[in-house]
Amino acid sequence: MRKLVLYIAISVDGYIAAPGDDLAFLQKVEKEGEDYGYAEFMTEVDTVIVGRRTHEWVMQHAPDFSHDGRETYIITRTPRESIGNRHFYTGDLGELIADLKAKEGKTIFCDGGADVVHQLLKHELIDEFVISIIPVFVGNGIRLFKDGRPDGDLTLVNAKSFDTGLVQLHYRRA
Amino acid sequence: MRKLVLYIAISVDGYIAAPGDDLAFLQKVEKEGEDYGYAEFMTEVDTVIVGRRTHEWVMQHAPDFSHDGRETYIITRTPRESIGNRHFYTGDLGELIADLKAKEGKTIFCDGGADVVHQLLKHELIDEFVISIIPVFVGNGIRLFKDGRPDGDLTLVNAKSFDTGLVQLHYRRA
Repeated sequence: MRKLVLYIAISVDGYIAAPGDDLAFLQKVEKEGEDYGYAEFMTEVDTVIVGRRTHEWVMQHAPDFSHDGRETYIITRTPRESIGNRHFYTGDLGELIADLKAKEGKTIFCDGGADVVHQLLKHELIDEFVISIIPVFVGNGIRLFKDGRPDGDLTLVNAKSFDTGLVQLHYRRA
Repeated sequence: MRKLVLYIAISVDGYIAAPGDDLAFLQKVEKEGEDYGYAEFMTEVDTVIVGRRTHEWVMQHAPDFSHDGRETYIITRTPRESIGNRHFYTGDLGELIADLKAKEGKTIFCDGGADVVHQLLKHELIDEFVISIIPVFVGNGIRLFKDGRPDGDLTLVNAKSFDTGLVQLHYRRA
């Protein structure tokens, strides 16, 4: 069975962005030649789920859109024609995930943003979590985990720390 | 210089308690003979800061109050006579910490609760953080990190994982 993986960075105080979608805190751990396992993780991924705003942010800030070789589903309320293998999806998120998981394929990667993640968490659709904790307090902003989700057990798969102070925690839903 | 240390457990989604001060999620990592370094940490501690509600909770649930050998400051709005070395403190929290840090002594341990922690975080009075991440989602409840605190860099001192899935992160304010 294919799995849906959330692979994301947060501050110690639990934010994925400062106010104004500010991701400057990620620079704290930028290091030549260190991608914290991202490229290796992406070799297992053939499908990406991403929110509309996050997709726009990525297109603005990283125009060499790194998911171009993968089926990408952009979750939006506005219907739009697909662009190559980028599909604008306006339907039920749970149905999309169920359909994708029923197909043959590799890992499905959720690339954010906060609203899509919250919907996926609320409906317990994420199978694994790779959370990279950046050694900073952001103080305010957009949280990874909003209130009002189901409780549930997790299994720690792996914990790894890096000399930049980043700690990467890998959990599986139990 | 003495340091103020926050030594606390949170869920993966950042809660220190479920609604109703429910700490049942901590049982997930209970293991005979494993205290995750607590007793060793406490040998360095001679002073405890704790909120009034948390103190009452501890007195109800753990009547053999484990801080009896230490100077304990219970942060409250209601003046009350000291009981042995338990002092009920109604003054300014920043002044208390400054006074304590100016004295000779060992580590000052903040034992919660959320409001005291938030005040200490807001005023950047905590020097080190030992955060034990329990492998569960709580979904709702009392967060360790509330919105509206200063940003700031942290230094990872140590990261340690246990076979129960608990990961203990130790940071120092940079």
